[in-house]
Amino acid sequence: MNPSKPLILITNDDGYEAKGIWALVKAALPHGEVVIITPDTPRSGMSHAITMNVPLRIKKFVNSDGIAYYRTNGTPVDCVKLGQKVILKDRKIDLILSGINHGSNSSVSLLYSGTMAAAIEGSFENIPSIGFSLLDYSSEADFTAAEAVASDIIAKVIANPFPANIALNVNIPKVPLKEIKGYKITRQTKGYWNEDLIENIDAFGTPYYWISGYLVNTDSGTGNCEEALAHHFVSINPVQTDLTAYPVLNDLKFLEK
Amino acid sequence: MNPSKPLILITNDDGYEAKGIWALVKAALPHGEVVIITPDTPRSGMSHAITMNVPLRIKKFVNSDGIAYYRTNGTPVDCVKLGQKVILKDRKIDLILSGINHGSNSSVSLLYSGTMAAAIEGSFENIPSIGFSLLDYSSEADFTAAEAVASDIIAKVIANPFPANIALNVNIPKVPLKEIKGYKITRQTKGYWNEDLIENIDAFGTPYYWISGYLVNTDSGTGNCEEALAHHFVSINPVQTDLTAYPVLNDLKFLEK
Repeated sequence: MNPSKPLILITNDDGYEAKGIWALVKAALPHGEVVIITPDTPRSGMSHAITMNVPLRIKKFVNSDGIAYYRTNGTPVDCVKLGQKVILKDRKIDLILSGINHGSNSSVSLLYSGTMAAAIEGSFENIPSIGFSLLDYSSEADFTAAEAVASDIIAKVIANPFPANIALNVNIPKVPLKEIKGYKITRQTKGYWNEDLIENIDAFGTPYYWISGYLVNTDSGTGNCEEALAHHFVSINPVQTDLTAYPVLNDLKFLEK
Repeated sequence: MNPSKPLILITNDDGYEAKGIWALVKAALPHGEVVIITPDTPRSGMSHAITMNVPLRIKKFVNSDGIAYYRTNGTPVDCVKLGQKVILKDRKIDLILSGINHGSNSSVSLLYSGTMAAAIEGSFENIPSIGFSLLDYSSEADFTAAEAVASDIIAKVIANPFPANIALNVNIPKVPLKEIKGYKITRQTKGYWNEDLIENIDAFGTPYYWISGYLVNTDSGTGNCEEALAHHFVSINPVQTDLTAYPVLNDLKFLEK
């Protein structure tokens, strides 16, 4: 990475209207050259989805602060691919940042998250990549502390060696900056989402369902992301993408033949 | 699991019109009670996406063989959630099957796959879950061998203990049944997708992009899924969802404070 003026690609899954991405842009601008490419609508819960059935479009805009950015009809992962292969196709991206998400991506929320999928997509091509999430789902969330944390972490990542093929899942507690106790390197908390499929009846008498739910934390150990966040630490969880369940390879020998 | 008549939920990501899901239904029917819930359109590349911004619908149909099934406007993961929480809400699902996918889900394709995300969703709630994929993208692919392999694996999984919180990623080579050498328990092949963003111009003179690409295999070791498939073995890769990069936790201590 060129530490004097790294090339930073920024995306998110909440779209260009979200406060979070502009907080991340403000955090990143002092550290390098920033290129922004964001979905044209909110794309939360898109995970690692890519767009296969419709053509992708890119349009350039300027926001009310005079900052140029690109909008696409793609998913967060599409944004990273379009950034790499179209907008910046002849240049080397030094850092990919995603977020700042409105809402937590700790524990298994990581698997559903478009924010983190964009960062993971960067890690596939060995680009240092970070997803940032604030534990506040509100569209009017206060990003003051999260922006300061992001700026701090960006500076440190630029100045230090970054592990190969890794993305960082950074979750920031919903407290004022002075109440943040510090930063902890964590492991992913064991858990699952317990869904309520809320049933309602539409104007034509037909039932419909809306996914709601809550994270069930099944982790009895220490050092995990939920524990750090509960104690008002920023959680930094390094993420890799070999999903092989190595401990059970032998247990499954009965399936071989 | 009730081995005499297990309750089997079947879904896929290619939708109800795909040959693959009906091959899987045929493979599963001799082994238990089958409930089918499938997306109403092809949803390849949807990964672990869930539908958050529109209501979900469920409609019951009967196919031309007289088999009842449900269609939804949701993603493959939504299908599993709707199966668990609406259609079968008072019953215990013994086995979740997804596929048979038209095309490989080996290596990092796993991360983009709606087929495998549906199986992984089942594993979150500790239901034995298997995603099946045939290495043939054609809508007219021959599923004769894949159906026999699926039936064989389903029988074995029902008769044996299944590891907790695991999904199986089963990939089947595109060869006749008699040329399949056997089944191997494998690890995920290291690699990434190298995308071509194909640029074209629409009828109004505006450029658009279409994602294409190919898997780059960067794995120099043995025992991986791509190696097994290349030698005409069925690859069975057990998958878990703690993405923590444990080996680099210490390398990142510079970020703590």
